[in-house]
Amino acid sequence: MLGLQRRDPDRLLPADPETRAVARDLYRRVADRPILSPHSHVPAELLAQDEPFGNPAELFVVRDHYVTRLLHAEGVGLDVLGVGSERSAEPREIWRTLARHWHLFAGTASGYWLQEELSEVLEVDEQLTEESADRVYDHIADRLARPEFRPRALFERFGIEVLATTDDPLDDLTHHRALAEAGLPGRVVPTFRPDAYLDPSAPGFPERVERLLAATGSAATFAGYLAALEDRRAYFVDHGAFSADHGVVEPLSAELDAVEAERLFRVALSGDADTDTARLFRAHMLLQMARMSVEDGLVMTVHAGVFRNHSTATFQRYGADTGHDVPLPTTFVEGLRPLLERYGLEPDFNLVLFTVDETTFSRELAPLAGFYPSVYVGAPWWFLDAPDSIARFRSAVTETAGFYRTSGFIDDTRAFLSIPARHDTARRADSAFLARLVREGRLTVSTAEQIADDLVDSIPRRAFKL
Amino acid sequence: MLGLQRRDPDRLLPADPETRAVARDLYRRVADRPILSPHSHVPAELLAQDEPFGNPAELFVVRDHYVTRLLHAEGVGLDVLGVGSERSAEPREIWRTLARHWHLFAGTASGYWLQEELSEVLEVDEQLTEESADRVYDHIADRLARPEFRPRALFERFGIEVLATTDDPLDDLTHHRALAEAGLPGRVVPTFRPDAYLDPSAPGFPERVERLLAATGSAATFAGYLAALEDRRAYFVDHGAFSADHGVVEPLSAELDAVEAERLFRVALSGDADTDTARLFRAHMLLQMARMSVEDGLVMTVHAGVFRNHSTATFQRYGADTGHDVPLPTTFVEGLRPLLERYGLEPDFNLVLFTVDETTFSRELAPLAGFYPSVYVGAPWWFLDAPDSIARFRSAVTETAGFYRTSGFIDDTRAFLSIPARHDTARRADSAFLARLVREGRLTVSTAEQIADDLVDSIPRRAFKL
Amino acid sequence: MLGLQRRDPDRLLPADPETRAVARDLYRRVADRPILSPHSHVPAELLAQDEPFGNPAELFVVRDHYVTRLLHAEGVGLDVLGVGSERSAEPREIWRTLARHWHLFAGTASGYWLQEELSEVLEVDEQLTEESADRVYDHIADRLARPEFRPRALFERFGIEVLATTDDPLDDLTHHRALAEAGLPGRVVPTFRPDAYLDPSAPGFPERVERLLAATGSAATFAGYLAALEDRRAYFVDHGAFSADHGVVEPLSAELDAVEAERLFRVALSGDADTDTARLFRAHMLLQMARMSVEDGLVMTVHAGVFRNHSTATFQRYGADTGHDVPLPTTFVEGLRPLLERYGLEPDFNLVLFTVDETTFSRELAPLAGFYPSVYVGAPWWFLDAPDSIARFRSAVTETAGFYRTSGFIDDTRAFLSIPARHDTARRADSAFLARLVREGRLTVSTAEQIADDLVDSIPRRAFKL
Repeated sequence: MLGLQRRDPDRLLPADPETRAVARDLYRRVADRPILSPHSHVPAELLAQDEPFGNPAELFVVRDHYVTRLLHAEGVGLDVLGVGSERSAEPREIWRTLARHWHLFAGTASGYWLQEELSEVLEVDEQLTEESADRVYDHIADRLARPEFRPRALFERFGIEVLATTDDPLDDLTHHRALAEAGLPGRVVPTFRPDAYLDPSAPGFPERVERLLAATGSAATFAGYLAALEDRRAYFVDHGAFSADHGVVEPLSAELDAVEAERLFRVALSGDADTDTARLFRAHMLLQMARMSVEDGLVMTVHAGVFRNHSTATFQRYGADTGHDVPLPTTFVEGLRPLLERYGLEPDFNLVLFTVDETTFSRELAPLAGFYPSVYVGAPWWFLDAPDSIARFRSAVTETAGFYRTSGFIDDTRAFLSIPARHDTARRADSAFLARLVREGRLTVSTAEQIADDLVDSIPRRAFKL
Repeated sequence: MLGLQRRDPDRLLPADPETRAVARDLYRRVADRPILSPHSHVPAELLAQDEPFGNPAELFVVRDHYVTRLLHAEGVGLDVLGVGSERSAEPREIWRTLARHWHLFAGTASGYWLQEELSEVLEVDEQLTEESADRVYDHIADRLARPEFRPRALFERFGIEVLATTDDPLDDLTHHRALAEAGLPGRVVPTFRPDAYLDPSAPGFPERVERLLAATGSAATFAGYLAALEDRRAYFVDHGAFSADHGVVEPLSAELDAVEAERLFRVALSGDADTDTARLFRAHMLLQMARMSVEDGLVMTVHAGVFRNHSTATFQRYGADTGHDVPLPTTFVEGLRPLLERYGLEPDFNLVLFTVDETTFSRELAPLAGFYPSVYVGAPWWFLDAPDSIARFRSAVTETAGFYRTSGFIDDTRAFLSIPARHDTARRADSAFLARLVREGRLTVSTAEQIADDLVDSIPRRAFKL
Repeated sequence: MLGLQRRDPDRLLPADPETRAVARDLYRRVADRPILSPHSHVPAELLAQDEPFGNPAELFVVRDHYVTRLLHAEGVGLDVLGVGSERSAEPREIWRTLARHWHLFAGTASGYWLQEELSEVLEVDEQLTEESADRVYDHIADRLARPEFRPRALFERFGIEVLATTDDPLDDLTHHRALAEAGLPGRVVPTFRPDAYLDPSAPGFPERVERLLAATGSAATFAGYLAALEDRRAYFVDHGAFSADHGVVEPLSAELDAVEAERLFRVALSGDADTDTARLFRAHMLLQMARMSVEDGLVMTVHAGVFRNHSTATFQRYGADTGHDVPLPTTFVEGLRPLLERYGLEPDFNLVLFTVDETTFSRELAPLAGFYPSVYVGAPWWFLDAPDSIARFRSAVTETAGFYRTSGFIDDTRAFLSIPARHDTARRADSAFLARLVREGRLTVSTAEQIADDLVDSIPRRAFKL
């Protein structure tokens, strides 16, 4: 139902014909520009090993919690979809299940991307229906078996200039080293993601920190802990990392004195931190992460405001990232103030703030980024990474902060094949927004052209120090 | 001023001509489909007795707090409008007052519906002005006196297939029984609405619970209280009810052990519950209501986040539902978690969440409904039941949850004559939204057609188990 | 880049040609109507002294924190921009800095207004670029030196009928007296702004209150303090003031008994008020201000929800109003309730509520203003005073509260030359909104015309008692 035999070349562009013509011209300028992907979740291993992708179900359903989520809501069990350790489901059957429920994805971002991937990447030229499901499956399976559909070949075909992965601080980055020597047409670099080492309430925190200390030969003191984190950041920097990423429920920062920090660290390490202690420790560590970013130059990205693993039963049976992470009301102004008071005016500090509470765009993020040289408004993230949401984001942010205080697009995806679709969506959505401003006499065409170019080039290069 | 001599057949459809053409085709498919009204506040008595409607002022002003509200804001006293027990106002004078202030309603949902009712139902073919007020009054009075304008005749003319009323748990449902035997072309069924029996801070709570226990012959224990509620729910189920409705200020749930629940119940019954006790008791009872819904199959609807009776002076003089209920900031994610942890994955449990804080649509409700098979995003409710608000709702929800995790339209109205206007508004607004997605290449026409059909048929039938 | 050699006459009007035609007609009706500016921050001194404006940099950059803000975010130090006491920067160099960074302002409200001022007021007919910067500077400097570009001449040219300034309660209003006798074609009146006298946590509060008591010969008791405030309000009323303005972080009100109020006052006067005491005192004083407004007739305006001086280092070096004020999540319903319970139904009390948290528009402000005769929804303020934001405001408010419960436009500006640009923007944005409703069959053209007229005339006259 959802599928289009041929994709509309003007898809996502505004309805009004004159505005659409302007948007089309803007889009064409940037449609084929190289992809800068400064924040993704593609595993480096995928490109390092360069093995053929698995079957269509594995690729498009099983591993994509954006997709399994909606099927689950419809009543399809995650076990039936092959999620989790019990994977017994037959791939072709999973694919048929997707086809049978294809209407659920109409109008969603996931549905749009899937359609793009089928049509633009995998050359599927018929609509996905229950009737066509097997043919489409076979068609995709055939393509995936070909050398030109292996990860590295697609990396080149997609025109990726930079791809940042997201990695555990103790990752040895073997795959990244291998890729650096592999002669890819673009860079694949790691991102330092220390959340689990900073949150005393994370399961296994003491053991994890012990491993960190052991790996870096650091003392079991707060100073040793900081040194260990600095050591691993340096390792990441040596391997080409340009950013450190921080997922937090609340964007809170705090500055503790040395004695108090040491005390909290010992409580945390004992595994006895209560809620308030854990919260304060995290807040202090967010500020420490900012300090390290000021010192080592890694761009600091903060992804705030998601309640993870809302359904305990699902988490226990299928693990994390299984579709039940839900945004919370979020505010940055007071919580980030200690951090910004300390480092907000530092000249080479870049702090990119991502939100899934869109009320913060006009209320907080645009005003903060419109003053602090360090602060950038992160591109619409996760549930907000979709055409209408991007339009709302630009409308909410631009009148206060313009275009140049935003981060440029990030795809934030585990789904390698969706990278071009996501960047293309953003380029179309931004072209649509710019075209409206032109048509409303708020921008000249030449200014809009310059901005369209910058949004896919100088703007992300600067925000992420590419 | 506001009135249109002839209604624009393309009203509420998008401006762009090509998009409008698509929207018009979609709208025409569904314009005359039967009305499913799974959540209204029309009294069953109205249809059971089938008496002529009162005068135009009574019908369109006195009983409609959406209307008296704005006149009151303009400085017209509620007494002058005939509200409350002191009703001395002359109906024709009230009608003239409305006509004199007709401009206040320009652009409002209330004004739009009134205009629709005058024009489409009552065949008024001139604009309401001070000059025309008396003629329009007489015209309406003439129509109301005719047999074809009695409630049952209109019920048939409106094409209502299902109409759910909202009823007190101790209601004997006489009128519903009478209607079941009356041979109406559609069903009129009750809805179980137990708020006043679940909230220890509601005036008269102990006496009300005593009546409940007496009526069901239950013991004055927490177990007896639960049994009494279950008993009354069963009575409602026997009379065709398919849902139980819950109005709460905060959408909070909690699970207490039996001893604690018993203790709180006794405190509540003594009339001594403090704020925290009342809050915890309500939270536990919301979870109990979910349990009962799982057991007896009644769809659970939650209407959250309204501060009722903001003006005490007005409440004391004129009673509840007199226009000063105001929405509050609302969040569902943490408060509903205990309930969803317990029952969110139950296969036949339907939980429809309504909000008047539209920030929750993209942030919370779409993500929750996009995972939990039990959760549906309720249609835009109350202040949000209006064309622009519906457009914002669809934009906020669809990219994350699609169309099939929403509830379908409900009219939520006491104003019987406004039912077709409200459903028509939703059908037009949804057609407008779908047409934009078509024009932007995001949906094929045939997919949009299927969704348009489903939005007035299979989607509400499923969410409300019709 | 941003500049338009000739301004598009249809700027800010909707893209769809038919809708644009309607909007254009509506806009033309009101484009040249007198300007009512019931809330601005223009200093009376400017008009009283009527001296030529300083250089272009002083006029458009140094004194406008909307502009320095974005340059600062780009990394340009405020010292380089001549802000603060250290002003050593050369004006022409500041101007070149603006020109070099002109792209930052593309799409922003500030950029739009600047362009309007250059083009419409100062007759600049080329785009501002690095290359043209010096020529444009010289052109502006030449204009500013001419008598027809002095403040009073522009006051007349702009067609200002009323201009309210914002003044300290102890201001002697000399300039206003002088202006009253100067034979200007419009009124210039003061606004009573007592924030610093009502907040015990404001630096210097005890000394300031001492000065207030001394100036009015009042006793150092709470009763004396209230009498002193009443005395100064009367003085303002005598000088033509029609409103009293209140900037608060939280819109909280509270009613204390006399003993408790006296006690808090003494603590506040001792300089020892802790956070809770200060908060409660402010809340009580907001309610007292409402009482005084009921008694003396001054319209009460509340500007809520801004965290002032977020960057302490910047505040200490450059002072307040230097670009780092950031909105906070705001809610009015419970906090303003004590005030509204006491005075909300008073017949001649006008309370205009301004917000920079746009979530409150549909959730709280429209419902409150749609019931309380005293409450008006303030025009989009500060970060929300921009074309897209105005469209969102109208969409969020109108369906619940219509047009007649809003305040009419205020410019809220220190930048005298931007006054016509800001009013013109609002007129265009409102015409665009009305035209859409016409095109969607929701308003007749004649109703839209009446509303367009009222929005620049009877609506602000009523809300502000002009």
